Amino acid sequence: MQFELQSTDPKSKARAGKVTTDHGVIETPIFMPVGTVASVKAVHQTELVEDTKAEIILGNTYHLYLRPGTETLTAAGGLHKFMSWDRPILTDSGGFQVYSLDGINKIKEEGVKFKSHIDGSYHLFTPENVMDIQRQIGADIIMAFDECTPYPCPPEYAKEAMDRTHRWLQRCINRFDETEPLYGHSQTLFPIVQGSVYPELRKISAEFIAETNREGYAIGGLSVGEPHEEMYAMSDLVCDILPKDKPRYLMGVGTPANILENIALGVDMFDCVMPARNGRNGQLFTSEGIINIKNAKWERDFSPIDSNGTSYVDQLYTKAYLRHLFRSNEYLGRQIATLHNLRFYLWLVKEARERIINGTFREWKELMVPKLQNRL
Amino acid sequence: MQFELQSTDPKSKARAGKVTTDHGVIETPIFMPVGTVASVKAVHQTELVEDTKAEIILGNTYHLYLRPGTETLTAAGGLHKFMSWDRPILTDSGGFQVYSLDGINKIKEEGVKFKSHIDGSYHLFTPENVMDIQRQIGADIIMAFDECTPYPCPPEYAKEAMDRTHRWLQRCINRFDETEPLYGHSQTLFPIVQGSVYPELRKISAEFIAETNREGYAIGGLSVGEPHEEMYAMSDLVCDILPKDKPRYLMGVGTPANILENIALGVDMFDCVMPARNGRNGQLFTSEGIINIKNAKWERDFSPIDSNGTSYVDQLYTKAYLRHLFRSNEYLGRQIATLHNLRFYLWLVKEARERIINGTFREWKELMVPKLQNRL
Repeated sequence: MQFELQSTDPKSKARAGKVTTDHGVIETPIFMPVGTVASVKAVHQTELVEDTKAEIILGNTYHLYLRPGTETLTAAGGLHKFMSWDRPILTDSGGFQVYSLDGINKIKEEGVKFKSHIDGSYHLFTPENVMDIQRQIGADIIMAFDECTPYPCPPEYAKEAMDRTHRWLQRCINRFDETEPLYGHSQTLFPIVQGSVYPELRKISAEFIAETNREGYAIGGLSVGEPHEEMYAMSDLVCDILPKDKPRYLMGVGTPANILENIALGVDMFDCVMPARNGRNGQLFTSEGIINIKNAKWERDFSPIDSNGTSYVDQLYTKAYLRHLFRSNEYLGRQIATLHNLRFYLWLVKEARERIINGTFREWKELMVPKLQNRL
Repeated sequence: MQFELQSTDPKSKARAGKVTTDHGVIETPIFMPVGTVASVKAVHQTELVEDTKAEIILGNTYHLYLRPGTETLTAAGGLHKFMSWDRPILTDSGGFQVYSLDGINKIKEEGVKFKSHIDGSYHLFTPENVMDIQRQIGADIIMAFDECTPYPCPPEYAKEAMDRTHRWLQRCINRFDETEPLYGHSQTLFPIVQGSVYPELRKISAEFIAETNREGYAIGGLSVGEPHEEMYAMSDLVCDILPKDKPRYLMGVGTPANILENIALGVDMFDCVMPARNGRNGQLFTSEGIINIKNAKWERDFSPIDSNGTSYVDQLYTKAYLRHLFRSNEYLGRQIATLHNLRFYLWLVKEARERIINGTFREWKELMVPKLQNRL
């Protein structure tokens, strides 16, 4: 994987760059739709490419490990082939899910014992086997096995989890470096900065992670319930420490406004279930603000879903029709809203990129952030 | 609406024809996907046109009347505009739903009182208001308000319902002929032959209906649980009586084999929820037989969903992947299976049409019918 820093905004820390993988190029800043179990929910792979214009998608190691399982994925020749997706993929390490999906997990130095949400069976994730599993899945970018702390988190525990994350990282790197990719394309390992909302821990962690000299870095443990200002403060502090010539991925963030604010702080890559999940619940993000399409006010609004929108669904269907589909609990409503929201997120980061390159990002961001939070 | 009979199979009663409406041409025999509440479930309008190659879709008056309601549909300028579908639409009369969806209905000479499945409110459908509602929906082809009897049905009741259907038909015709279409395109009214599985009643009904001299005719009250041989006998008898120069629509039929058998008897138009509904449950119809994609045997079958299939999903995705999506209860599984099945049904009738035109339909049908019922 290569990263080229192409441009920096003169009035913020925003960056435009280019990540090159064996499955193609990703222009940053980028948003990555989440394809939990080998599918971005309710969206065809063809639509991801042609309509939402996704450049990279995310897979979840925890979910893929349980279903379809690594034997099936290996037999298929990896996740790309299994799901017929030939652009880049990033997989998380499974860490986040084993802590958040179920109370039943036990963290030891060796790793984390957890219970499957599907059949209740017990499994163990260790830094080593999570590297092996991600080799079998075959994503272009894979993540270190970390401990993501909840919010709020006492400082003592935040430090303990951070220290363990650092020890686990060394084991991840050792295992990753002594194994080979399985499917003929290269893979790269991103370490993850932790430290909860404590500046001193974030500083220690970012410095530790920067020292590992990998091809890219992630910021974890944010967007877990903390106030946005705390998220921005941590992101800002960490981006200032991480090297300029590597991409920075802020995990699990966030709202459209969160994304623009973090781009301004120097983040290059984002993922979040929000556009798809909220879309399935009838919430649409637009450049003018947020629409709850289930509201009665749209009942006879025959204007396009989003007159500024760049997904084909935005112009083809009306608000009244989409509202009707949600009221009638029709699959197509969820499909349309998901396409719209993913396209909107991808438009937003592409627009940010163009503004960074032409030097107008800062003004545009300050205009957009309040608009993005309007309730229409 | 015009109908042109283009070709008749030399060795069966199968016909190839052309129906011309203000929203375009339909080549027969044709299958019409069902778009119950202004959406063919889990399929985009663009996919219906570009992938499944649907030439006409069906809407359900009962469902559309309740939701979004005729006021919204009228405000939108009719169903075509409301759902962004500019090809032909056929609406049923709501009769079938008021009898089948809920036990709570009361049939009188005036019409049928029924209870909404959504909010329990009471409504009355009469031959007159069902014509008015279908004017407001604005389908190209609209159906008479009939009484569809269940199977089995005592002969006395079958006769009573048939006689009432005939009296209601006259009221439908009167109302239809004294009203005008609302949206600038013409509409046509198809009467419906009833008579359960009694040849003498079917003969009386077909003769009565043929006398009305409308632009097309439907056969109702079949595919309600009777053995296939009884369905075929009734369809055969009725097609022999209905005029050759008008299209014949067999309502609610059926399996791929049912469709080929009825084409051989002279039926031109079909609709059925089966390809979409069974698809959503993981049953795929193919030219080699029926696949239950949830079966364990497909777990590591990385061959295309249907190597003979003509939907793009057939070649893009594998059986193993589709099975995984169903096991994981992913929306995309239902979307893929629905597209596949609808495209298969539309391929089947188009292939039948070509065979009719080149005179090889009968042999092909006899080869296909057993294959279509294989369990793969």
